[in-house]
Amino acid sequence: VAKAASDPGKLRKSNSGARRDLVSNEILESAAALFAERGFAATSLQEVADALGLSRTALYHYIGSKDELLSQLVEGLPSQTADALLKISKRKDLTPLERVGAAIQDMTERVTANPARFRLLLLSFGDLSPELRARFRKARLNVLERLTTMIAEAIDEGEMRPVDPELAAFAILGMCNWAAWWFRGQEEGAHAVDEIVDLFCGLTLDGLRSDPSRQATATGKGPAHALSLLRADLDYLERSLSRTRRGS
Amino acid sequence: VAKAASDPGKLRKSNSGARRDLVSNEILESAAALFAERGFAATSLQEVADALGLSRTALYHYIGSKDELLSQLVEGLPSQTADALLKISKRKDLTPLERVGAAIQDMTERVTANPARFRLLLLSFGDLSPELRARFRKARLNVLERLTTMIAEAIDEGEMRPVDPELAAFAILGMCNWAAWWFRGQEEGAHAVDEIVDLFCGLTLDGLRSDPSRQATATGKGPAHALSLLRADLDYLERSLSRTRRGS
Repeated sequence: VAKAASDPGKLRKSNSGARRDLVSNEILESAAALFAERGFAATSLQEVADALGLSRTALYHYIGSKDELLSQLVEGLPSQTADALLKISKRKDLTPLERVGAAIQDMTERVTANPARFRLLLLSFGDLSPELRARFRKARLNVLERLTTMIAEAIDEGEMRPVDPELAAFAILGMCNWAAWWFRGQEEGAHAVDEIVDLFCGLTLDGLRSDPSRQATATGKGPAHALSLLRADLDYLERSLSRTRRGS
Repeated sequence: VAKAASDPGKLRKSNSGARRDLVSNEILESAAALFAERGFAATSLQEVADALGLSRTALYHYIGSKDELLSQLVEGLPSQTADALLKISKRKDLTPLERVGAAIQDMTERVTANPARFRLLLLSFGDLSPELRARFRKARLNVLERLTTMIAEAIDEGEMRPVDPELAAFAILGMCNWAAWWFRGQEEGAHAVDEIVDLFCGLTLDGLRSDPSRQATATGKGPAHALSLLRADLDYLERSLSRTRRGS
């Protein structure tokens, strides 16, 4: 503490870190929802304090300014996703196709955990500082590139059809990100996150078209294998029959 | 004209209609891109005029106010999509599954034709009049309900797996709407709209997983049918063989 006090810059940083920890995720998500709904420029800190049930003084205890609050709300959203995708891309216990599934699960869970903050990130992009914007653009590019690479690997491995990997990545990102606009969290009748992840993965990997053959052969090596076995059986039967006939 | 002149309200409407026709889609898309990038509140009409290469007076010839310009830019975007989906849902020349494919194609073409206007619709929602917002909310709900119904019909028909139709609709809407954020139009190296439509339809209906069996049976009635035929053949051969044996 003594060392920090002798270094005003460090003290400030340390205080700011402590303040950040005091602000619960719930408070941040409520503030984000307010900004996302009314617009960042059009919403005063007094209105944020009112909505959170805090006095303006108490709110200032946590944050230095409206701009600082905005940075704090969207801080790390794209870079955390980029980091998570990097980790998934290195998992050797999964096949490339399974890694794409893990990426879909991770991104869906991330967006549905903080839908208002993801909405705010998109809506208030113009209100961010140029530095923050540049950082976020880079993180988003990393997300796109990492997902695209995972898809390209699954194609190379023969697990995926040879589609354009970047287009497929855009399709998946849209599916996941859009959840920020319709996911209703804990509300009654809301879809469960697990259910959403299952649908997104199922749709992306196997599509929505029904295919009775897939169910019939899901546990085996596929109909081509079954057919070749049957063909072998038929050959055997044919030979047997012809021998029997010759014999009779 | 004489009749219109005697009715100021009608004249105004007619003038407004004519002015609207004079403003090309390209000008509207450029204005939308500017608002979407800089924020509606933060962008003046002078800046819009500068960006469009018009004098402010010339711009006022086309539009009455900044609010009118915003309404004009996003006007009809959700309701036109809702109308298009209603038309597709009535097409009896398509199976339910094919109607879902047609809906994906229509929505993708719509978003990629005016990406900036679709971005602006989402970004400036808070800047719209309460009446316009209520109208747009209703149109969006119609879009969701019509797509959900199409999916439910494809499930009832046995063409689609029994998934939650609303969740599947959200996934498809996300995929299509997100194109407003990444589609680069006529730029060099940009993805072609047809290519995007093909990928979105292929991903949604058949997924990305490679499946050799599907290629092998794409033109037939599927391996289950082939298997049942083979089983019938086997039964026949078995019976034949047993008769031959008994006979021998």
